[in-house]
Amino acid sequence: MHIRKQRLLTPGPTPLLPRALHAMMASDIHHRTPDFIKLYPLVLADLKEVYGTKGDVLITVSSGTGGLEASISNFFSEGDTIIIASAGKFGERWAELAKAYRLNAVVLTAEYGDVVAPERIEQALRENPSAQGVAFQASETSTGAAHDVRAIAEIVKKTGALCIVDAITGLGTMTLDIDNWGLDIVVGGSQKAFMIPPGLAFISVSEKAWTHNATAKLPRLYFDLKKEKKMADKGESAWTPNVSLILALAESLKYIRSLGMDKLIENAELLAKATRSAAAALGLELFAPNSPSSSVTAIRSPKGMDSSEIVKGFRSQFGSIIANGQGSMKGQIFRIAHLGYFDFADLFAVIAELELVLYSKGFPVELGTGVAAVQKVYAEAALKPPAA
Amino acid sequence: MHIRKQRLLTPGPTPLLPRALHAMMASDIHHRTPDFIKLYPLVLADLKEVYGTKGDVLITVSSGTGGLEASISNFFSEGDTIIIASAGKFGERWAELAKAYRLNAVVLTAEYGDVVAPERIEQALRENPSAQGVAFQASETSTGAAHDVRAIAEIVKKTGALCIVDAITGLGTMTLDIDNWGLDIVVGGSQKAFMIPPGLAFISVSEKAWTHNATAKLPRLYFDLKKEKKMADKGESAWTPNVSLILALAESLKYIRSLGMDKLIENAELLAKATRSAAAALGLELFAPNSPSSSVTAIRSPKGMDSSEIVKGFRSQFGSIIANGQGSMKGQIFRIAHLGYFDFADLFAVIAELELVLYSKGFPVELGTGVAAVQKVYAEAALKPPAA
Repeated sequence: MHIRKQRLLTPGPTPLLPRALHAMMASDIHHRTPDFIKLYPLVLADLKEVYGTKGDVLITVSSGTGGLEASISNFFSEGDTIIIASAGKFGERWAELAKAYRLNAVVLTAEYGDVVAPERIEQALRENPSAQGVAFQASETSTGAAHDVRAIAEIVKKTGALCIVDAITGLGTMTLDIDNWGLDIVVGGSQKAFMIPPGLAFISVSEKAWTHNATAKLPRLYFDLKKEKKMADKGESAWTPNVSLILALAESLKYIRSLGMDKLIENAELLAKATRSAAAALGLELFAPNSPSSSVTAIRSPKGMDSSEIVKGFRSQFGSIIANGQGSMKGQIFRIAHLGYFDFADLFAVIAELELVLYSKGFPVELGTGVAAVQKVYAEAALKPPAA
Repeated sequence: MHIRKQRLLTPGPTPLLPRALHAMMASDIHHRTPDFIKLYPLVLADLKEVYGTKGDVLITVSSGTGGLEASISNFFSEGDTIIIASAGKFGERWAELAKAYRLNAVVLTAEYGDVVAPERIEQALRENPSAQGVAFQASETSTGAAHDVRAIAEIVKKTGALCIVDAITGLGTMTLDIDNWGLDIVVGGSQKAFMIPPGLAFISVSEKAWTHNATAKLPRLYFDLKKEKKMADKGESAWTPNVSLILALAESLKYIRSLGMDKLIENAELLAKATRSAAAALGLELFAPNSPSSSVTAIRSPKGMDSSEIVKGFRSQFGSIIANGQGSMKGQIFRIAHLGYFDFADLFAVIAELELVLYSKGFPVELGTGVAAVQKVYAEAALKPPAA
């Protein structure tokens, strides 16, 4: 075999920003000394800017799921009603959390590949006027479908319930106007559009959410966000921070700010559009054609072909790691990510690889046609002046 | 602007092997302690294996040019005759060295893009029977042309002259059977097919070369290869070694050995073949069509287009760094490298970028056709069983 570079093309972990990776080497500082206490508030301030909120944004040393758990344990009491819009594996995680914390969960499910319409949430809120929150995914990573966050938020805003958004793959891939739309809790993760390794979750908390927090009785200690905020206001973290990741985050936030959060989102949107265009050119079907997310594009495997074979082909032929379907979608779909540190050159290569993987499995492919579709999207967006 | 990853696609420095880069972090060892003295002989042994010689291979802390200088200062005396086959900017460097060291240089020049035919060297040796050496480039990086190393070596072998090969971009991109062909001195550089940053030169020395060394009177101290060999036999370097690069080299040699030096060469050959095929599909002319090197492919800029514009387009549109022509070739050609840590995914992207750069400058391009040519070379080489 020839050289095959390992390339992470998954919807998290995502490709690392080199300068952020290198910054991790400066980890020999102590977190209760000025070395860290000078750094941390700057990182929190940059994180707020990138989130685009005037509210608080806190960091926990955990995976994204830890951030989801904090979004429950800090704002609810046992028996509270929560409305969950579940459209995939990550929607089901909200339901698991609600069950573990003994909430009264009203779960609105959508078929995989589809999303929960805002009207259904409106109706559920009418039927459950005491609901304390509505939780859903901005982008459902397992299916590549995106909820209409703005429409849902407008509905929730009129009620006493909190609008709780798992935006782990939504941040940096879609516009989320936290303060104007009324998103009370927005959870992010370091290994997504933030371009650094896994290990940190981010949680924005609105004023309305703090009001709920004041009376929320669920047990919490490690994920106590009030304590975290109190310490953050002093420039520190409640518990031992993940110093190397904070150093990496400082660099990646600098990069995202210099690029512009709007440009980062546009980058993902363009790559997603180009991927959909390539799929169409190759005669492939999208899994979530009606509400496609820009974080990841899920494509159906051609009839009679197990998508696991496609995933394996990418790895064995090219060293590229793409994502299979999860759960019952395994074997049915494969997923190509766009969130974070991805560029058009990555996509040219991925689509050329896809063509060759399909071709090697006997699927009729005219080589180069998918790549040409991507190139056309690039040319339209980057080579011509934008329409007036 | 959107995300544009910086990608080094030049014929040195070349893309870094990640594990080699990471190994540099272990540099806090002392070079006169067992930490280093255990490591260095293993690196030298692996380097010999990768060079494919039973002779000595020594390391200098210098750029490749330092290695070229050592090839002169260790094996000649003032006034000695040296025959130089010069086919580009690096051939001219041999002539500069010969002049600086007051040798009697017989310089055989070829036009840029062409090479010096072995017959011309044979004739020069007949006309200069006292010549002590013949120096040339295996691959002339500035033009993308390769000398017929084997044929030249066979001619030189029959004389008392040393066969001195600048293989800085030749190693790892073409077969060089050092012992059987009789290559007396073969110079390599760390930032080429060795996949690590610049800072080390490698020099193989044959028995015949050591015989010349015994009577060579040119002044030398830092590049004294006899002293270097004496210290290497004790597991040390003559002067302070570049510890971080030796650590990186240890990893890259492990990688090259696991891949196989023959596969590394085949990889470059295939990428070069695919690049030539893409150029043809796009209606572009090669600069060295008759003796193309597999280290780098030099392509003529389309009529009326300055190649500097193409180089700039790669950088500004995609963040990709490709090489312009050097000296008088600047503006005329651009060069795409294949040596070292390059794979097909890199090439799919580079050719897609090239198509868009040309397209953006008004050159007629049917998008995807160059990429398809590359894909076809991949498919022939990797998807079908090799011909019997």
